[in-house]
Amino acid sequence: MRIGELSRQTGVAVPTIKYYVREGLLPAGRLTSPNQASYDDTHARRLRLIRGLMDVGGLSVSAVREVLAAVDSTEKSVHKVLGAAQEAITPPSVGEPAGLAEARRTVAELVRRRGWRVEPDNVTAAESLAVALATFQGIGHGAIEEVLDDYADACERIAATDLAFVGRNAEVDTLVESVVVATVLGDAVLSAMRRLAHVDASARRYDEGAHDASGGPEPVH
Amino acid sequence: MRIGELSRQTGVAVPTIKYYVREGLLPAGRLTSPNQASYDDTHARRLRLIRGLMDVGGLSVSAVREVLAAVDSTEKSVHKVLGAAQEAITPPSVGEPAGLAEARRTVAELVRRRGWRVEPDNVTAAESLAVALATFQGIGHGAIEEVLDDYADACERIAATDLAFVGRNAEVDTLVESVVVATVLGDAVLSAMRRLAHVDASARRYDEGAHDASGGPEPVH
Repeated sequence: MRIGELSRQTGVAVPTIKYYVREGLLPAGRLTSPNQASYDDTHARRLRLIRGLMDVGGLSVSAVREVLAAVDSTEKSVHKVLGAAQEAITPPSVGEPAGLAEARRTVAELVRRRGWRVEPDNVTAAESLAVALATFQGIGHGAIEEVLDDYADACERIAATDLAFVGRNAEVDTLVESVVVATVLGDAVLSAMRRLAHVDASARRYDEGAHDASGGPEPVH
Repeated sequence: MRIGELSRQTGVAVPTIKYYVREGLLPAGRLTSPNQASYDDTHARRLRLIRGLMDVGGLSVSAVREVLAAVDSTEKSVHKVLGAAQEAITPPSVGEPAGLAEARRTVAELVRRRGWRVEPDNVTAAESLAVALATFQGIGHGAIEEVLDDYADACERIAATDLAFVGRNAEVDTLVESVVVATVLGDAVLSAMRRLAHVDASARRYDEGAHDASGGPEPVH
């Protein structure tokens, strides 16, 4: 198809498509004349992936480039490719909040206590977690350590669901892409859903007089 | 204290502090002479909150301004203030992916099925969830509806933990600030922890030959 048709199919403007080609995110089309290139469904699919990672996942152009490099890698170990993809989609930590050393110990202790097969020193997510914990403590709203095991219970359940979902639905050659999509867009899904659950929990706790806004029957807890 | 001491205490550069005052994020200091202002612990606390929301939460200056307006609101209904704060920290949806109408029905059905006291039409998080679901479907990696109830189970548990944490630790006058901190930084904590749980789940599934990297005993599942 021509670039105009690719634009119509994906909702991405033609100059934006050209920009992604220049930035190395999207393979160039096959030249059919000196001034015209032809695109196919793999381009449309890749474009939807790029837009999803940017618009919903909030990734930058350079983060998307790293993610796609992991997706397109020919490395054979699934576990290693998943690790590389995950490093690419984990935002780098900014700054070193006070209390970071203690927060790192808290994370290492959590990993040990849960029996997670993770080397905290080598995983960006462990450092992100330590930075978030130290920042939380610095703002001074109580000891977030109290909630870590409840969060870990929930995350173990979510991770088991995620891996089963990815393993069930993906062809082997799109496994890494599936993991990236499930991780980045899954964060957006979980963040939005947690906020909905907060509204519900707040209504139950602080708005006792109101009727059930969903119109459904009162659930039993 | 003078602005230099405030800068040392919080690790925020003096020009940045002045920028936050000009942008209306931080109250001006009390003038002690025509060229000098005095700051106190409330400024230090507010500065740490601003930096946490920006650095770890990824909020923009304008999003932080909205959040602080909700935090400083004199509205009496806790449920309403929590709702306003939540709206301020929920990123606006970008674009309208194909399949959005169907995704909105999926969200409304989920809310009804879970008995959540949420009006999907009036809550930004419900729209964010619908956009994330539609984008996920558009990229074409399986029917994410299969995992929604597992995610919802996890989010209900997390929300119950969050509300109990906030209710236990916060003074009444800092309740809204606590909820904002717990929501924004909690997203960062959960996102990082979910990635750690993914590494663990991937190691168990795809890296069976490796020894337990944490060095601890093999957990029983």
